[in-house]
Amino acid sequence: MLNKNVIPELIKVLGASRVKTDQETLISYSYDGTFQESLPEVVVKPTTVEQVSQIMKIATKYRAIVIPRGAGTGLSGGVVPLKGGIVMEMTAFNRILEINTVNKYAVVEPGVTTNELALEVEKLGLFYPPDPASGKTSTLGGNVAECAGGPRGVKYGVTKDYVLELEVVMPDGEILTLGNRIDGETGWFDLPLLLTGSEGTLGVITKIVLRLIDKPVTKQTALAKYNSLVDAGNTVSTIIKNGIIPTTIEIMDQTAIKAVENFLQIGLDTEKEAFLIIEVDGLEVEVEKQLKQVQDLCFACGAVEVEVATTPEKIAQLWKARKSISGACGKINPTKIGEDATVPRSKIPEMIVNLRKIAEKYDLKMIIFGHAGDGNLHPNILTDKRKTEEMARVEKAINELFEVAVSLGGTLSGEHGVGYMKAPFLEMEIGPLGIEVSRKLKEVFDPLQILNPDKIFSCVAKEG
Amino acid sequence: MLNKNVIPELIKVLGASRVKTDQETLISYSYDGTFQESLPEVVVKPTTVEQVSQIMKIATKYRAIVIPRGAGTGLSGGVVPLKGGIVMEMTAFNRILEINTVNKYAVVEPGVTTNELALEVEKLGLFYPPDPASGKTSTLGGNVAECAGGPRGVKYGVTKDYVLELEVVMPDGEILTLGNRIDGETGWFDLPLLLTGSEGTLGVITKIVLRLIDKPVTKQTALAKYNSLVDAGNTVSTIIKNGIIPTTIEIMDQTAIKAVENFLQIGLDTEKEAFLIIEVDGLEVEVEKQLKQVQDLCFACGAVEVEVATTPEKIAQLWKARKSISGACGKINPTKIGEDATVPRSKIPEMIVNLRKIAEKYDLKMIIFGHAGDGNLHPNILTDKRKTEEMARVEKAINELFEVAVSLGGTLSGEHGVGYMKAPFLEMEIGPLGIEVSRKLKEVFDPLQILNPDKIFSCVAKEG
Repeated sequence: MLNKNVIPELIKVLGASRVKTDQETLISYSYDGTFQESLPEVVVKPTTVEQVSQIMKIATKYRAIVIPRGAGTGLSGGVVPLKGGIVMEMTAFNRILEINTVNKYAVVEPGVTTNELALEVEKLGLFYPPDPASGKTSTLGGNVAECAGGPRGVKYGVTKDYVLELEVVMPDGEILTLGNRIDGETGWFDLPLLLTGSEGTLGVITKIVLRLIDKPVTKQTALAKYNSLVDAGNTVSTIIKNGIIPTTIEIMDQTAIKAVENFLQIGLDTEKEAFLIIEVDGLEVEVEKQLKQVQDLCFACGAVEVEVATTPEKIAQLWKARKSISGACGKINPTKIGEDATVPRSKIPEMIVNLRKIAEKYDLKMIIFGHAGDGNLHPNILTDKRKTEEMARVEKAINELFEVAVSLGGTLSGEHGVGYMKAPFLEMEIGPLGIEVSRKLKEVFDPLQILNPDKIFSCVAKEG
Repeated sequence: MLNKNVIPELIKVLGASRVKTDQETLISYSYDGTFQESLPEVVVKPTTVEQVSQIMKIATKYRAIVIPRGAGTGLSGGVVPLKGGIVMEMTAFNRILEINTVNKYAVVEPGVTTNELALEVEKLGLFYPPDPASGKTSTLGGNVAECAGGPRGVKYGVTKDYVLELEVVMPDGEILTLGNRIDGETGWFDLPLLLTGSEGTLGVITKIVLRLIDKPVTKQTALAKYNSLVDAGNTVSTIIKNGIIPTTIEIMDQTAIKAVENFLQIGLDTEKEAFLIIEVDGLEVEVEKQLKQVQDLCFACGAVEVEVATTPEKIAQLWKARKSISGACGKINPTKIGEDATVPRSKIPEMIVNLRKIAEKYDLKMIIFGHAGDGNLHPNILTDKRKTEEMARVEKAINELFEVAVSLGGTLSGEHGVGYMKAPFLEMEIGPLGIEVSRKLKEVFDPLQILNPDKIFSCVAKEG
């Protein structure tokens, strides 16, 4: 419970209109892209870094929990206020402050959406590659906090490959600039990268400098159709092994194809067991050569058809199909539990076989899609959280799914983060000592455990 | 002073032949690529991770200082045993354990040299880009510890862009694996990247998994000659601004050209004020197009001649010239104090002007070369450490040099690390709070301050 002085002091800093305690607001901020709900005690909407600093000073004074939040599109539960406290919405920090075309970086506030930055830099011939499916609404602050990925990760990496400098408000209210604006040049401890992926547990990000690259001259998109999901999985490592790094290699299983077709009705071939959506980019001559090689390799691995999207409309339709999977799933079952366990790409066929066995064993509806080129599959279990017995089976299935991923040399999370959802499983991957070291690193930044506790690993909140 | 039980206990673990206390050995391990010397008390040469663990347990028991060491080619003094203690040489860890061509990574021990790995992966059509000038002898463990760079940083980044997983022995002897082998996929706190660049202050690296990429099909190398060093500096940002990312853009000033010519006598044009060595790589058609653009841009920026190296011999000669600068400097003055202050690439001309002013003001001989494409200049002061009065001027010049770099939005170190040489200046860049947080992070790993103290920032060693 918040100390009774907290809300009056917050109002003194922000004004009453930016400190919300009405039930509608609290409910709106009780959940994110996952399935658990928990009410915050107050929602604050600062507009300046000084206000963020003041809020953290109040929180420190009264040992109040603070959960920094972007657009709430997260898929591991990073912003669900499990223990109440103060949710701090950062979307008012929504300015692109600079796009530097010579040194190739952008200075942005954390509330700018991923797509907004991407579109602005494109106008200048530049490129910000990370492209989470939620990019239309997800914020760059959230992207950095969760180290978001996206289809282009195969060729261009994830958010951490673009973070140069961060302005951060520490839990005690101090403002700290980490890193610098020189591409790739940081000696000693790389603090910006320690904060990237830290899920709002170490500091509140108030400014971000992101590396930009040149926009590829052209791209081509192909759709390969398979009668076997495992053949589609095999294609991935075959392409990479042959020295081709496509921009994206996305996989969709038959359940995903059917769900999307049912949702959009765009004439997808629902008879097929799997699709791969493969994009290559670069210079025209390079793209043409690689596309031809990709087609040949798809056929060699068992594709029954490879269709090249020749018009912008057709390309847009393919991506709409891919990006509608999550929405389409909502039409099938009320609850979707999405994981993003990731394995070395050579292990994708083995992972697929195992995922299907798990779904069968626990009698669950599972949909498989994701960034196959990265080994990053998104097995989604479609269920209903009100069905207690089924949810118990879901829990066992998820446990087994992580066990398989880790045993194949994989990781719990490719791009969605740990949040509360995977926190109980993290020790499986990094061991008790890994947890111990990580907890101590958290304590360096947040000795009072007031910043987004119970995320990544469960933190015992100290008595206030 | 080491406790009298330390050496007998080390001998019990390693055998007498791998525990050295003779004067010749101690002198050999008293210095690195910098100018300060300080004798260790004992040099140990473990061959297994279990031995490293045992050594650290002994060190913990007796609060003995341990300095892990690769080939000792470091340029910021990371392995100089300022307070004596145990130097732990890791060069016996010299095996390449795996090169995975499908998932594209190499598993290596820390004593493998940079060039050995580069050559081995090239045989398989793969590429490990970081190429420090010392690559023939520098070890990958040292490269990771210092986050080494090299000419190819412009296009391919530095060591941290390739580190996936590390096996580390903690100061208390525990063995910990950090990260995973999946390209770019690490959620939560990125511990492998926290260790990369940590200069042996957090843990002892005993195994490294490095990301590999595909070998570029072809490359071309050009030498652009200038009558003005500032024009050469201007060319750098002009090329990048025009959407061309060369593999390398190296700069050499006239002093460097003369020194190398004097050393190698290969017919370099010593009348010119600056050279740029520019390499582009990729597909043939791409390389030809870019090389043409590069030539045009060099001329537009004031180059008087652009020579394309058409034979492998000519290319090798150009690189030999570049990589001989450090050696050639040794012929001029006995002491070379090399810095690697780095500025945003658009600020290179301004940095050059400032460097020359500093050299003039303090009446010092300065040579300027380095990875201009990264903004990473290597101003080297040629002096004689026995001349006390001149060394005092050197110190002032270095202080001013860092002040200018930081004021231009730059950093103290692009790739050489902080070591003891830049430790007094780090606060200038990251502020007292940055130092405080970094010190606390060090304490998480090394609460007894036994691992490479007085590097990065000076650590007060606790009483044993």
